[in-house]
Amino acid sequence: MTKERLYLFDTTLRDGQQTPGVDFALEEKRQIAAWLDDFGIDYVEGGYPGANPTDTAFFSNKATKSATFTAFGMTKRAGVSASNDPGLAGTLASKADAVCLVAKSWDYHVRVALGCTLDENLENIRQSVEAIVESGREALIDCEHFFDGYKANKDYALDCAKTAFDAGARWVVLCDTNGGTQPIDVCAIVEHVIGEAGIPGERLGIHAHDDTGQAVANSLAAVNAGVRQIQGTLNGIGERCGNANLTSIIPTLLLKESFAARFETGITQEKLKGLTRLSRMFDDLLNRMPDPQAPYVGASAFATKAGIHASALLKEPETYEHVAPESVGNARRVMVSDQGGKANFIEGLARRGISVRKDDPRLDTLIALVKEREAEGYAYEDADASFEMLARRHLGAVPAYFNVTSYRCVVERRINAVGEKIDLAEAVVKVEIDGEEKMSVAEGKGPVNALDVALRKDLGKYQTLIEDIELVDYKVRILNGGTEAVTRVMIETRDGQGRHWTTIGVSDNVIDASFEAMMDSIVYCLFERLKAQKAA
Amino acid sequence: MTKERLYLFDTTLRDGQQTPGVDFALEEKRQIAAWLDDFGIDYVEGGYPGANPTDTAFFSNKATKSATFTAFGMTKRAGVSASNDPGLAGTLASKADAVCLVAKSWDYHVRVALGCTLDENLENIRQSVEAIVESGREALIDCEHFFDGYKANKDYALDCAKTAFDAGARWVVLCDTNGGTQPIDVCAIVEHVIGEAGIPGERLGIHAHDDTGQAVANSLAAVNAGVRQIQGTLNGIGERCGNANLTSIIPTLLLKESFAARFETGITQEKLKGLTRLSRMFDDLLNRMPDPQAPYVGASAFATKAGIHASALLKEPETYEHVAPESVGNARRVMVSDQGGKANFIEGLARRGISVRKDDPRLDTLIALVKEREAEGYAYEDADASFEMLARRHLGAVPAYFNVTSYRCVVERRINAVGEKIDLAEAVVKVEIDGEEKMSVAEGKGPVNALDVALRKDLGKYQTLIEDIELVDYKVRILNGGTEAVTRVMIETRDGQGRHWTTIGVSDNVIDASFEAMMDSIVYCLFERLKAQKAA
Repeated sequence: MTKERLYLFDTTLRDGQQTPGVDFALEEKRQIAAWLDDFGIDYVEGGYPGANPTDTAFFSNKATKSATFTAFGMTKRAGVSASNDPGLAGTLASKADAVCLVAKSWDYHVRVALGCTLDENLENIRQSVEAIVESGREALIDCEHFFDGYKANKDYALDCAKTAFDAGARWVVLCDTNGGTQPIDVCAIVEHVIGEAGIPGERLGIHAHDDTGQAVANSLAAVNAGVRQIQGTLNGIGERCGNANLTSIIPTLLLKESFAARFETGITQEKLKGLTRLSRMFDDLLNRMPDPQAPYVGASAFATKAGIHASALLKEPETYEHVAPESVGNARRVMVSDQGGKANFIEGLARRGISVRKDDPRLDTLIALVKEREAEGYAYEDADASFEMLARRHLGAVPAYFNVTSYRCVVERRINAVGEKIDLAEAVVKVEIDGEEKMSVAEGKGPVNALDVALRKDLGKYQTLIEDIELVDYKVRILNGGTEAVTRVMIETRDGQGRHWTTIGVSDNVIDASFEAMMDSIVYCLFERLKAQKAA
Repeated sequence: MTKERLYLFDTTLRDGQQTPGVDFALEEKRQIAAWLDDFGIDYVEGGYPGANPTDTAFFSNKATKSATFTAFGMTKRAGVSASNDPGLAGTLASKADAVCLVAKSWDYHVRVALGCTLDENLENIRQSVEAIVESGREALIDCEHFFDGYKANKDYALDCAKTAFDAGARWVVLCDTNGGTQPIDVCAIVEHVIGEAGIPGERLGIHAHDDTGQAVANSLAAVNAGVRQIQGTLNGIGERCGNANLTSIIPTLLLKESFAARFETGITQEKLKGLTRLSRMFDDLLNRMPDPQAPYVGASAFATKAGIHASALLKEPETYEHVAPESVGNARRVMVSDQGGKANFIEGLARRGISVRKDDPRLDTLIALVKEREAEGYAYEDADASFEMLARRHLGAVPAYFNVTSYRCVVERRINAVGEKIDLAEAVVKVEIDGEEKMSVAEGKGPVNALDVALRKDLGKYQTLIEDIELVDYKVRILNGGTEAVTRVMIETRDGQGRHWTTIGVSDNVIDASFEAMMDSIVYCLFERLKAQKAA
């Protein structure tokens, strides 16, 4: 049986840029377009040439090899011809392969926002599509507010879609602009468009927003009802609650039998294995933390904490996973935690290259130790390097590379003799390495920063091994409330090769807790690097 | 027309606790249960009594007033009677009103994970339900892997559900445990369960997971197909990609006509206005940043960036919003000159007893000041006392009751002469009151605690006014990552009459940020009490 083709339309660079805080630079647009192109996306909508200098520059060259490079614009205004409309001119002057124009299809908005007659709007749609087709490009029409418009004035909404189709638009895209439409209504309305307006599904697209948390479901409901193009963004960025998340939709289309048996896309199973990486690279470019709970690609998407599931999961992982994590380039994570069992533990250790027999008595004492420390406030599931150091110390031997004999932090605020406010944070650390004592002092923005700098200032013969590491994230949580309660500090460290690791410290004193996590991070780094040197 | 009742079942405290990094303390469980109860949730599932000390303690008292307080457990094992099963005994010894037991309904899992026969599993379900009903409690059965089980062995999955129903379970809950089922299949299978197994929809529940980003859609599809109970969690926390997000589902049920016209829940429109606050308080308790894109409750959920929509939106906001932001306690954010913002601001001040005229120029400078400080990292929405002090200082006059001329904190760790490890945290504070200088010193468990004690040790004539206050919660968040980033500290203070207030401090130094929040808290207390004295 031949499968029907589904087309994926990415609008990360256009609608995605409506996300508060997101504003792509030219180079970033080029990078993202290249990623999307390589991944197998059919249409890359890059922005609105003519509307701002970045987008105009971006469209001065074609930014994709295989994907249809698509410019966004608006249908021409009433009272000017298509060739004289400045907005349309920008798209036609660009190096785009296709032009996607937004057209109002809710009668109310035609009157209020455009201030023209309903017939003038239809005429604008027709002439705009014709101008694009005449320029030798593919024309797409985004019917803005289509579903709300359909509910308000069904005939007019259908007229807009039909006008675009009759004028030669390759795709008529039904937009749930406000994002409030329910899947059951999307399905019914798409079926009416195909049945009543007579536009075949192979010419219809869906553009959904996540305002009720159902943009993915609305997109897939539209596919089930007949549309063959899906618009969305990477990681679901976009205005308000975001656009339909292509990072969630794509694996569902390729891996879920009810879609995979009927449809094919431009993305191969092999490319799909790069999805998790693509999603993370994109978050990295946006400088934001990846959502651990993201479907398919999140760090927790295939994580199991529960002991009751974990032992069965290790026996038959596929019966506890809706798809194989490798299929999207993600990995199974069976977490060490006080809820987990022995099987979790052995698996967790094995992944870190620590092998231990199930009947080794040190395994039981290690499990007991972890439980005890987790009761005190440690959370090893999110602090893999600290867990590894704890286990290695308990099971094997981690050398005491150096010994911190004392440290002191001073934080001071005062007014000096000439009335200036003086803020000071200073730390002094004494370290003993091979019988030699070294004393370092540093100032910092706060006591933790000062201590971090002082501690890593001179570790003697180990100094060259830790020169490239830096503290990239620092999280503090107070457990049980009150300053007298326990403080949990988690530190994320990065090295020059981009490796990350996380360590933890717990104490009733925030400085002590930070110090413990810093020490674990440095010792972990030394251990890994000296092990690698030995192996080399 | 009478509406059908939909029941909301919250499992934040049980399945939500499977989220990596989430582990509720007893007090946190009590707090969350009280929030859910007050909000109008029907069932609060609190954990698994007998499985760990926290849950056992939590179930030693009823934690809800109106909501059905529900214990989680597992159906009894084969080979022991219900009364001798230790797992079941824990739930029956608890103060729960209802017990929800997970039962395997996928034949494969019965054999592999339980290792008993298919008939034994049915018998275990029957006897377990009967034991709960006999104890005078409401019985619920979570049919684990129901949808996958149905696809593998339809008859057996239906037998499991039917057995629970026939034995007297109030609710038979169909669980998409692996989270991979598509809405179209959920709908078809629910319809078959009602039609073939003959279990009426008023006795069926849905428990969905978000592994394909469709837990909300799956839950609502099940409602459309006939189920009348929805299980989910606050902010969609839960194992892997999370459970169905009740924070998204509830407003859809109450505000979307296709549901609101047919159903009613235990939540009033008035309570719904507390949804955004509930969602934020919960994130705060988890010490994590709220998702700005969260449907309905996110900071960006009703935000529009300057662009093609902004000017039209200012004319007719409601045609660009799928629901009114106020209906869920959220607010519109138009990221150009915000006309609606000023009225909100005046109202916020009025609520705190501060009246100001709309045309007072100090109002504009105050709004600008708040925006500027929020850009620096302050979050006044959750620090009402700091907001009030900022406004009163700017608009009227808050006396400088006292002046801290300097402070110093020392944190030290060293080995003393006889080899003992010495930890010290000490703070010195110099205060000027009415021209007189006072110097206080204190030790604490950490620098913040020491500073808190020293600062409140001797405030001269004001000392009696602050003797009964204590710091009850202390939260630290690092904004933008790295020790060099900005630190936000929030402090909650309580007085002898049980009044609570929250203050905030922001600095690149955690001690300075803490000090700022402590100062605001003391000044707020003095201001309120001196005002009350004057009024009396």
